[in-house]
Amino acid sequence: MKIEIFDTTLRDGEQGAGVEFSDHDKLRVIHALDALGVSYIEAGMITDERSAAFFDSLRDIKLENARLAVFTQTCKAGEKPEDNRLLTLAANAPVPVAVIFGKAWLYQVTDVLGTTADENLRIIRDSIRFLRAAGKEVIFDAEHFFDGYADSPEFAMSVIRAAYSAGASRVVLCDTNGGMLPDVVGLITNAVCEKFQNIGIHCHNDMGMAAACTVSGVLSGATQVHATVSGVGERCGNANMNTLIPVLQLKLGFDCIGDKISNLTRTARTINEAANLSFNENEPFVGGYAFTHKAGTHIDGVRKAPRSFEHISPATVGNDRNIVVSGLSGRSAIIDKMGAYLSETDGTFSKDDPRVIRASELIKEREAAGYDYEDAGASLALVIDEALGRRRHFFKLLSLKVIVDENASKSDKTEDKNFFTASAVVKIAVDDKEYLTAGEGNGPVNAIDSALRRALMRFYPAIANMHLTDYRVRVLDSNATASNVRVSIESTDGKSVWRTIGVSSDVIHASWQALCDSVEYMLGKEQAK
Amino acid sequence: MKIEIFDTTLRDGEQGAGVEFSDHDKLRVIHALDALGVSYIEAGMITDERSAAFFDSLRDIKLENARLAVFTQTCKAGEKPEDNRLLTLAANAPVPVAVIFGKAWLYQVTDVLGTTADENLRIIRDSIRFLRAAGKEVIFDAEHFFDGYADSPEFAMSVIRAAYSAGASRVVLCDTNGGMLPDVVGLITNAVCEKFQNIGIHCHNDMGMAAACTVSGVLSGATQVHATVSGVGERCGNANMNTLIPVLQLKLGFDCIGDKISNLTRTARTINEAANLSFNENEPFVGGYAFTHKAGTHIDGVRKAPRSFEHISPATVGNDRNIVVSGLSGRSAIIDKMGAYLSETDGTFSKDDPRVIRASELIKEREAAGYDYEDAGASLALVIDEALGRRRHFFKLLSLKVIVDENASKSDKTEDKNFFTASAVVKIAVDDKEYLTAGEGNGPVNAIDSALRRALMRFYPAIANMHLTDYRVRVLDSNATASNVRVSIESTDGKSVWRTIGVSSDVIHASWQALCDSVEYMLGKEQAK
Repeated sequence: MKIEIFDTTLRDGEQGAGVEFSDHDKLRVIHALDALGVSYIEAGMITDERSAAFFDSLRDIKLENARLAVFTQTCKAGEKPEDNRLLTLAANAPVPVAVIFGKAWLYQVTDVLGTTADENLRIIRDSIRFLRAAGKEVIFDAEHFFDGYADSPEFAMSVIRAAYSAGASRVVLCDTNGGMLPDVVGLITNAVCEKFQNIGIHCHNDMGMAAACTVSGVLSGATQVHATVSGVGERCGNANMNTLIPVLQLKLGFDCIGDKISNLTRTARTINEAANLSFNENEPFVGGYAFTHKAGTHIDGVRKAPRSFEHISPATVGNDRNIVVSGLSGRSAIIDKMGAYLSETDGTFSKDDPRVIRASELIKEREAAGYDYEDAGASLALVIDEALGRRRHFFKLLSLKVIVDENASKSDKTEDKNFFTASAVVKIAVDDKEYLTAGEGNGPVNAIDSALRRALMRFYPAIANMHLTDYRVRVLDSNATASNVRVSIESTDGKSVWRTIGVSSDVIHASWQALCDSVEYMLGKEQAK
Repeated sequence: MKIEIFDTTLRDGEQGAGVEFSDHDKLRVIHALDALGVSYIEAGMITDERSAAFFDSLRDIKLENARLAVFTQTCKAGEKPEDNRLLTLAANAPVPVAVIFGKAWLYQVTDVLGTTADENLRIIRDSIRFLRAAGKEVIFDAEHFFDGYADSPEFAMSVIRAAYSAGASRVVLCDTNGGMLPDVVGLITNAVCEKFQNIGIHCHNDMGMAAACTVSGVLSGATQVHATVSGVGERCGNANMNTLIPVLQLKLGFDCIGDKISNLTRTARTINEAANLSFNENEPFVGGYAFTHKAGTHIDGVRKAPRSFEHISPATVGNDRNIVVSGLSGRSAIIDKMGAYLSETDGTFSKDDPRVIRASELIKEREAAGYDYEDAGASLALVIDEALGRRRHFFKLLSLKVIVDENASKSDKTEDKNFFTASAVVKIAVDDKEYLTAGEGNGPVNAIDSALRRALMRFYPAIANMHLTDYRVRVLDSNATASNVRVSIESTDGKSVWRTIGVSSDVIHASWQALCDSVEYMLGKEQAK
């Protein structure tokens, strides 16, 4: 049986604190969701002329799978739909679907809208008819439906009846405040589905149960699921699409996106990146840690029999198994990890191999100093090379000086990016040749990066293909500016991506370490070709 | 009815990738959990002499509410308990409770342990008796119970029977792989609770449903709930204690920690800090965004009637309502936010007040440049002061120079923290007096902080009471080291905590802005006293 996935990342997702999409981001998200095979994409809310202009820009967009929707509100009490500016803008938006929300809780009608039950039904009916007359498929979001039903089933049902009578194609039961338990959602959805068809379910995560409530709704007859990528959204977020698709398809036998489910992990990352959100690696199914094992007994278990500690095969959703190397995981994890960095000619290793013991000691030593290799596979590869006695140092640092100079005469405006200068002087040796170069940049790390590249380019022209894609700093303990910091750098050569780290009390020194690891990892790969 | 909260943050929580506790951290976590009123605290697993030594250090600890537990494994197939080193260390650990896990899924017994059903029951019974003989209360974790029951109810039940016959006080049904749906957990727990008492429930979040599964277990008869603070744990984490306590107490009428529930938010933050975890602000109930409203209609709604968009009152769990100031939220949010920074004598503001319009414009301008005030209330307060025309500048920067010097002759060891030096020269003016000071530090920001304080201390001795508690850097777009970065600083004067931000392409310049905001915010508060 088909369950429609209705994605509202760009609308309800954007209502989350800290979530913001540029028009360019939105386009990337729409195309990624369409490629994943969702049924509907709510592309945003019309709040002013600027957001209406974004919808105009979608006029000629070509999508394979999804229908685009605009989100809007009903006309006001005492108002005609055609007199409502935002509703009119929505009616004119060049997308096939309009989603409109209205109150299904009498208390909200009287105490928030300040109107009557009858007028509430009138504005819902008239607004839907207005959008239908403009040629739209209309989906009706019954806001606060579950609270409303608990308060008065008659009133809540009258709202659904009004929406369908005016021509809505779907009515969506919304737990707007997110305070419902799955069993209650199931019971109420069931009562609704006994009387109506084409019911959708829209849950929030204020109880940490948005996914469970949504599934409960589907098991009780709902056929459309509202969700957002990684569960972003107002307050505690919405139901998580990345969780619901595999639960519905793999565990319950419904069809949401067919065999495109194997793109789920990649799509989740793409959209989080497009939206500049920091990805939650613990996220079910798609997180980097979702199939990551750290405890010794678990690592031992999955090596013997994957399903002993994996409830599904990671590949089904396009994810991978991971073994964490840490104090807790012991040497068998290190052997596993080493496997990933070794070629077949390197042979196999036993737990008692002196090189394994050396790698284990090196890693523990670095961990004690604040290094964390879980997300820095390239730095870990270099440590393993070191333990194997085959790490090559491509250059040696002789000295490094950084000067940042800010001059107040030009510093009155925060917007002015040119009133300070950062420069770096780097002296390195390659084999026996010394090289002194200088670099300038927008900041000290950029200046060092530039000086180091200029020095190395003469010896290793492949450096030109590589650039940094992310740079992060995290304080390791609570003594703030005097604390150790960990710098994480992500680099790419256009084909692959690798991550390195540095740890120091000096952010510049930590950055230097991470930069050097990145360069040396890349040169090592080049050499191995 | 009482539901026991069994916290396993320090054991199963620590099995999560990226989660690590020092012995000092562990002590802080234990005391915070005890003060919150949980029933049991699992303080860790004994894996070697070092972890055993940590338990020895707990010998004289005084707790008010919780019983401390050590986690351990059974003896091996063909082995006597007294010959098992780790089991013996656990028996000797000076805590009243031992938790021991054993297999409840036949497939795991044959394919992972490589032994027989009978020998599996024997090692469970003998190990529990051994711990009982050492004077311990013994809690038995029935690993993979739900998979095991689905495979063979007889086998799974025989494991429970063996544990109770050997003297276990509780048997805990574990969904070790986290692949169960709430309804299935409920049905199976119900079947178990028809035959046995004192059943616990331990769920993982691989389906995003750990909280719902746990609640389903409790509604089916389980009386002990295993959970971790913020749901940390292996793979996708464990059931989240911060979610379960309010759901069970406030929504379902069970008693977990009584009126200490109003400390929940504070405790969650304390423990995340002690554990150096980055707090998920979207977390249900305790997150900074859990009661944060951003959409205009929602802000309007909660102002008229709180329960229109809040499923519980935030104060019940010690949390607060928050209104986000952003492009989406409009001027009524700004007025609300201004209210928090104004005293009664400042009067009230209408949406059309020129000062409100000015504040709104200033905020939008800064947001466009990359500032984000959602987590930087102190910087926002300064912007509002600016809009009100009452911001006081306590000093003026004339010049700032930072020099970082690294000398390779001493740079061979990464551990060596002294081979580089960072120094800053700051020239400021207070009223008409100029001051030139220098500072040294572990890194450039620390050096600036030190120079700035030395300069300001002469004019504003209150500066001595303030220090920084957190420092974070985030790249704003994807051009890596040449991108704009946002620096967030958290400061305290021992009584309150405030957060400020700076944005620039230069991490040092952004840090300078955030530092200055922090100092000026504090001096403003001092002055207002």
